[in-house]
Amino acid sequence: MLYVIGLGPGDQNLLTAEARQIIQQTPIIVGYATYIKLVSNLLKGKTVIQNGMHGEVERCQKALDLASEGQDVVIISSGDAGIYGMAGLIWELKSKQQLDISVKVIPGITASIAAAAHLGAPLMNDFCHISLSDLMTPWEVVAQRVEAAAQADFVICLYNPRSNHRPHKLRQALDIILKYKAPTTVVGVGTDVARLNEVDQVTTIADLDETTIGMTSIVIIGNKNTYAYQGKMITPRGYQL
Amino acid sequence: MLYVIGLGPGDQNLLTAEARQIIQQTPIIVGYATYIKLVSNLLKGKTVIQNGMHGEVERCQKALDLASEGQDVVIISSGDAGIYGMAGLIWELKSKQQLDISVKVIPGITASIAAAAHLGAPLMNDFCHISLSDLMTPWEVVAQRVEAAAQADFVICLYNPRSNHRPHKLRQALDIILKYKAPTTVVGVGTDVARLNEVDQVTTIADLDETTIGMTSIVIIGNKNTYAYQGKMITPRGYQL
Repeated sequence: MLYVIGLGPGDQNLLTAEARQIIQQTPIIVGYATYIKLVSNLLKGKTVIQNGMHGEVERCQKALDLASEGQDVVIISSGDAGIYGMAGLIWELKSKQQLDISVKVIPGITASIAAAAHLGAPLMNDFCHISLSDLMTPWEVVAQRVEAAAQADFVICLYNPRSNHRPHKLRQALDIILKYKAPTTVVGVGTDVARLNEVDQVTTIADLDETTIGMTSIVIIGNKNTYAYQGKMITPRGYQL
Repeated sequence: MLYVIGLGPGDQNLLTAEARQIIQQTPIIVGYATYIKLVSNLLKGKTVIQNGMHGEVERCQKALDLASEGQDVVIISSGDAGIYGMAGLIWELKSKQQLDISVKVIPGITASIAAAAHLGAPLMNDFCHISLSDLMTPWEVVAQRVEAAAQADFVICLYNPRSNHRPHKLRQALDIILKYKAPTTVVGVGTDVARLNEVDQVTTIADLDETTIGMTSIVIIGNKNTYAYQGKMITPRGYQL
């Protein structure tokens, strides 16, 4: 059996019981080195196979190969494995290679949900997830989604908002969003959520300082009804109060 | 302290460690009766305050009142409390009434993530959440969001897709989606996910039988690259394989 497990944002308190139990019971763990560290206390006596960033395909292939040999294997993602994580690649490779192995995906807390809990209640109305990385989705497609989401007044969660290699995509996305949303629209940013160095901020599109945003940030842009209160952002559900 | 806790879809294996621990340590639990039952084994000796459907405002007010008296209180939602759950209402009421209490939201596994894990890997590219209930959002706004999401080829998760009181909204939404997505677009439906009577299906927009969908279903409509394989739905991330 190959288990594909989402660890949540990092704090083991946010691991599900099922994820923890399967990690503890499975002899082989495969993962990105940074995420392996997050569960190092659970890995005593196990075979640990880790590699670096951009090694996703190699990592998934290794996990599939071991499972094909009849071994029980866990491959880990941060957040939820099914959201920009390893679950898709595992299923893609399994289907292309017609591998006769069993795959079980164990859900986890994705970054938007963890950040939202700390930022207030920004996701209480319809929302979308958009990754601003154009490594695997053409920027034209990303930009079209940003535009559609802004026009229909979704709350917008931006994954991979900004990195040293892509310093300008966030600004480009915000410029598209500003065609439809006011500069006073509330924005929340969670950086290193549920880790020791977590920093949260609630501001507006106009006042957002992009340089505070990095690889481990998630940006949540409110809808026209989202308001700020005591450093939190709140999107009304629509109750008459 | 008022803790707002998402239980996940129902199976306690999908509860986070933090959620379980806080429920166990807190003397007062407030919730919708159906969700109270999901954690009844954790509630021995506690004060349990429960009411029925559509009692959300009353329930939240009760929890806020008890917290205002200085008590430690848990209010529960299914899924994640911040996604169509109690977190927003708690924050809205706290802000409107200027209540001097501390609120902590504990994240949980929302229905789309739980269903996606069982349906394959449908959420591996940009996606959105839309609730088809027009009880609190005007249908024109919902319809505009469905249209925008379909046009920009998001994967679309439909919450509250169909009930006896709203039997036709799903059909209306699918008709909008079919203006932009092919009838062969892959659709997954998870009903009672992570509960004993769970039923999952992977089909297409054309073949979807709406009468199989109810209050406890979540519908996930793929993007143009989503494909079906061995009863699962897989949305490619964009890797060159």
